[in-house]
Amino acid sequence: MKLSALGEFGLIEKIRKLAAGSSPSVLIGIGDDAAALKITASASLLATTDMLIEGVHFDLAYTDFYSLGWKSAAANLSDIAAMGGTPRFCLTSLGIPPTASVEQLSEFYRGLNVLLEAHRTALVGGDTCSSPRGMTVCVTLLGEIERKNVISRGGAKPGDRIFVTGTLGDSAAGLEILRSEVRRQTSEVRNKESKSEIRNPRSAIAKLVQKHLRPEPRVAWGRKLALSRCAHAMIDVSDGLSSDLGHICGQSGTGAVIEAGNIPLSLPLRKTAAYLSKPPLPYALSGGEDYELLFTVPPAKIKKLLSLGLPAAEIGEITATRTMMIRDGEGRLTELRPTGYNHFARVPRRKAF
Amino acid sequence: MKLSALGEFGLIEKIRKLAAGSSPSVLIGIGDDAAALKITASASLLATTDMLIEGVHFDLAYTDFYSLGWKSAAANLSDIAAMGGTPRFCLTSLGIPPTASVEQLSEFYRGLNVLLEAHRTALVGGDTCSSPRGMTVCVTLLGEIERKNVISRGGAKPGDRIFVTGTLGDSAAGLEILRSEVRRQTSEVRNKESKSEIRNPRSAIAKLVQKHLRPEPRVAWGRKLALSRCAHAMIDVSDGLSSDLGHICGQSGTGAVIEAGNIPLSLPLRKTAAYLSKPPLPYALSGGEDYELLFTVPPAKIKKLLSLGLPAAEIGEITATRTMMIRDGEGRLTELRPTGYNHFARVPRRKAF
Repeated sequence: MKLSALGEFGLIEKIRKLAAGSSPSVLIGIGDDAAALKITASASLLATTDMLIEGVHFDLAYTDFYSLGWKSAAANLSDIAAMGGTPRFCLTSLGIPPTASVEQLSEFYRGLNVLLEAHRTALVGGDTCSSPRGMTVCVTLLGEIERKNVISRGGAKPGDRIFVTGTLGDSAAGLEILRSEVRRQTSEVRNKESKSEIRNPRSAIAKLVQKHLRPEPRVAWGRKLALSRCAHAMIDVSDGLSSDLGHICGQSGTGAVIEAGNIPLSLPLRKTAAYLSKPPLPYALSGGEDYELLFTVPPAKIKKLLSLGLPAAEIGEITATRTMMIRDGEGRLTELRPTGYNHFARVPRRKAF
Repeated sequence: MKLSALGEFGLIEKIRKLAAGSSPSVLIGIGDDAAALKITASASLLATTDMLIEGVHFDLAYTDFYSLGWKSAAANLSDIAAMGGTPRFCLTSLGIPPTASVEQLSEFYRGLNVLLEAHRTALVGGDTCSSPRGMTVCVTLLGEIERKNVISRGGAKPGDRIFVTGTLGDSAAGLEILRSEVRRQTSEVRNKESKSEIRNPRSAIAKLVQKHLRPEPRVAWGRKLALSRCAHAMIDVSDGLSSDLGHICGQSGTGAVIEAGNIPLSLPLRKTAAYLSKPPLPYALSGGEDYELLFTVPPAKIKKLLSLGLPAAEIGEITATRTMMIRDGEGRLTELRPTGYNHFARVPRRKAF
């Protein structure tokens, strides 16, 4: 059977069924942002790993090695954040092509270490090997959390309000700009600019590119949510809002209604989308790599949530229907399908940094 | 600077210097078989990760997916064994080429899970992504050990006797056979056989290939050594005896003298080497991927070691000289240089499965 017939999430389900040894120590196994493993009576170990492949997840034509190191750490720190945990230790394996220099690898580790240090996480091991065809990065992050405070993807209940931190879509728009080489092929930009009525929003573009290359994992916010015990379910937005909300709904056995007008879009995204003559919303729904936190809160805990002072917007509600819907500005409901990234899809949607 | 000017072990040293955050929780960091991390007053978490790249570590022309899964688990279980620990949890990331089928991936996970289950280790997470150019595997293994029983590479002392479990060189000879396609190109073998005075040792060859494709990590033996507290230093033989002994000596600030005649060589290796008209010893010294345990024991604890009943051979002694020597059957001493695998060496030596 071809992988495209199964898709990425079908494959993960198959692996889950084949997985060795159900153990009472495995509190949360395959299929969440991180595994939660019992290590003492009151504490859990969190463990997550991500593989990043040149030409799939990143392109060295527009990703410097410092940013690659930073983002490799960020993607994994974000998975720990999405469980509500505290990151502690990191292991990093690199498959290194013959073209890479010692200086470039040093830059990679500088970018990785700066973000790890900001989150008091120690680099404790890894592997280095030669790769004949392109660079591969695999980062493993270990964290910890009080057992009673773990937030999984599967705990959402009908009636829960849906919240998301920060703004969505910036990273995807930043990637699109990098891809079109707007920044480097400035002559092309200037030609376009002279024809456009809207001024080339240079500082807006720079902010989007920054959010794409150097995302900030929301570790402190995840911790606040875990300690307050406000959230029923949580995930980080790495595949795009529609896909990641789909994971919460799928694992919780629920549906959702999203208010399109409430999805937080940044001013730089709005400006840049206007400049590109595109609507901004699809960047948020299908874009991914925002590394914001998407979580659900029961009505009785909204007041407590608000007291935490998180920059989070309420964007909808969990329903019992098992379908996801989105309501536009005129009150029309349409189905919201997961349109984020899926490895092994027949026509893979975009994902890169 | 080119990587070849630094070599694999120079790069690891550079990464160690750049590494984020020295933390009192990091008991053993970069540069051992696994990191040892303080999780409770008396227990350590062990964490290790290995990346395996098609065309570098394995060749799908002669490695079936079941064996690839098995060996990916074995290499990491062996790292936990080399610290004296108990493996507990596994995460597995795969970069999957478009040519791979669902059936092949199921075989990979079957092979991985069979070995994990044999060692009561649960598969708890990972990542799956598309890889445009060849298969990449990254396995992370988490284990545990009593803090007082951790065995590092760096504890050897002059006067310690050097021991190794099992036999060495079988895997390297098995790989050579697979590479020369002796098994598949049977017509070629038969031609050679008819000219050779020695009969083609089919069952010996099958044993070597088995040891290459399905190595048995020495977890139970590592545990015995840890609990008995006999060993000053330990490593698993993954890069070849000369290189791995070099790691013990380098990190302990010692040298060693090895008795060539005492290095344990299996009958299948001797038979096959004779058939190939090659000396068997180089397979043991430079071959690697044996996944046996190499350890040093102070003279006062030899009796205790022997009482454990491990199949281990005494092969030499740790010295204060900082050079490694090997003594041949006629008593001649020559320098023993690390001739195992080194990624990024100017002319990379072989490593594959």
